[in-house]
Amino acid sequence: MYKLKLMLALAAVALTGLHASASAEALASWNDGPAKEAILEFVKATTEKSSPKFVPPEERIATFDQDGTLWVEHPVYGQMLYCLDRVPALVAEKPELKDVEPFKTVMSGDREAIARLPTADLEKIIVATLTGMTTDEFSAQVTKWLSTAKDPRWKKPYTELTYLPMTELLSFLREHGYKTFIVTGFGQDFVRVYSQKVYGIPPDQVVGSALATEYGYAKDGSPQLIKMPKLMLNDNNAGKPEGIHLMIGQRPYAAFGNSTGDQQMLEYAGAGEGARLSMLVLHDDATREYAYGPATGLPDTKIGALTQALYDEAKQQGWTVISMKNDWKKIFAFDK
Amino acid sequence: MYKLKLMLALAAVALTGLHASASAEALASWNDGPAKEAILEFVKATTEKSSPKFVPPEERIATFDQDGTLWVEHPVYGQMLYCLDRVPALVAEKPELKDVEPFKTVMSGDREAIARLPTADLEKIIVATLTGMTTDEFSAQVTKWLSTAKDPRWKKPYTELTYLPMTELLSFLREHGYKTFIVTGFGQDFVRVYSQKVYGIPPDQVVGSALATEYGYAKDGSPQLIKMPKLMLNDNNAGKPEGIHLMIGQRPYAAFGNSTGDQQMLEYAGAGEGARLSMLVLHDDATREYAYGPATGLPDTKIGALTQALYDEAKQQGWTVISMKNDWKKIFAFDK
Repeated sequence: MYKLKLMLALAAVALTGLHASASAEALASWNDGPAKEAILEFVKATTEKSSPKFVPPEERIATFDQDGTLWVEHPVYGQMLYCLDRVPALVAEKPELKDVEPFKTVMSGDREAIARLPTADLEKIIVATLTGMTTDEFSAQVTKWLSTAKDPRWKKPYTELTYLPMTELLSFLREHGYKTFIVTGFGQDFVRVYSQKVYGIPPDQVVGSALATEYGYAKDGSPQLIKMPKLMLNDNNAGKPEGIHLMIGQRPYAAFGNSTGDQQMLEYAGAGEGARLSMLVLHDDATREYAYGPATGLPDTKIGALTQALYDEAKQQGWTVISMKNDWKKIFAFDK
Repeated sequence: MYKLKLMLALAAVALTGLHASASAEALASWNDGPAKEAILEFVKATTEKSSPKFVPPEERIATFDQDGTLWVEHPVYGQMLYCLDRVPALVAEKPELKDVEPFKTVMSGDREAIARLPTADLEKIIVATLTGMTTDEFSAQVTKWLSTAKDPRWKKPYTELTYLPMTELLSFLREHGYKTFIVTGFGQDFVRVYSQKVYGIPPDQVVGSALATEYGYAKDGSPQLIKMPKLMLNDNNAGKPEGIHLMIGQRPYAAFGNSTGDQQMLEYAGAGEGARLSMLVLHDDATREYAYGPATGLPDTKIGALTQALYDEAKQQGWTVISMKNDWKKIFAFDK
């Protein structure tokens, strides 16, 4: 009898160990600590049948900001670089733009002058490079750019600058029945070109800022959609929960962001009933990636700012802050 | 040797028979004929690995109109009935509407007068009953209505008036790796309330006409989304492919509709490369459901018209027309 009990106890320990090690393996690039623990607890609470906070599979929605949450956003957002890189092709098509600002400055190649361009000028560049073509042409242009453009610091394609712990987290949530969505302030048409390949997220699970399209017919009579300079959805700040409602139609159980643009999404997800997970990625690793806040005294930034006020709200609401420095063993898949 | 060949031949016949009977079972309410054949051929061509027209699972998108394609739309669209039925509750909240048209006419209960209301008045009723509340309140109101409202002809809840052959088709496509979407001219917030339960389609796979929401905070500080009287997407006609691009981001391989509002969606799906399936449901069964066209000389209608011009386009483009009378053994699950 004693032996049987002992064996059962040993078996239980072995099984528990197995479960923990399976989870640990799925999140292999995460250090043990409050962030990893918050993820494991949330998944356990919402997916184990016996849990009082069990969530049926069809309601398991998790939303992720992209820039600064899933991949690098410094020193400049990836899609902004795309738009700037498209200017020469645009000028070749429309030579009259060569002497018109802000295109003239971009064509000069003067990096400092380009960096000083005001927001209104950047918007002109965005509209000029993202509209006027068919949706198919646009996808082809982005695909081509992604295959050649490289980040100057790491000398790698931008699609390799994704955070390994976050792609592990995407897989881990999906293995537990969660449907994972990107909710980006940048253009959804841009992200959809590579989301399946890079994140395992299909185009219909990418919500982002969206320009209108116009249905019509090409010269040969075939149907086409032209990208128009009309903003349908500004998927930032309050636009994130509004975009989630428009395109997903359910409140997420988990949401992940890194800047003030994600604040309302994290609030919206966090305020639902049952177990909820709202997390903020803090860029506090100047050596392996970048360090910016200005929360907790890190340098201020115009690109993906996590203000002290948002940091304080996170603490007050019980959202978990992920420290890239302390919580992540590796940042990129190519890290040694 | 001869015996072995015979056995192999018999085995092949048995396996072929098995495959055919599995398919036949999945589409049990379909009569053999060109419509069923078109479906089986399309699925075979796009999902069998050896097919030159094989489509990878992540690109398998099928879109379905709802009213008149998945469920009954005569004599009046379901959501229009919902809006009319909401008027008393609205007037109870805002008594000043009692003497204002068109609410006065609706409150009179005079069915003929209500049927004569012009489109502009119906739009007033739609806006008044679909906006001003939180998204959660709206879902609760629709849920309540669905549990009590009944169609006067069949004396059944509207959610039972779905076409059995079409729900079989939804399942059949999903079993073959297709992601099924509803693309409705009516409100996506309305359809999303019951789409999972009735069609097995989750809210994020329902595209429809959409009103804007506004993010804010309730008195207790909790985040909420208020439904606003601002149309973001009119998901009809050209709005259907535009809505598909906005919310799905890929061109469907298969599309199903029944009226002029679906024309552009069927064109857009049908014009893609590889094997494509565009189908039109023709309401030609006055006995078991309704008969209206005006294609092929059926009575004209304001609700879900399939014009002769669209019918001719279908024939010219090679879209398959589904005859409810000839192609469907049963129309409803409750049919004997």
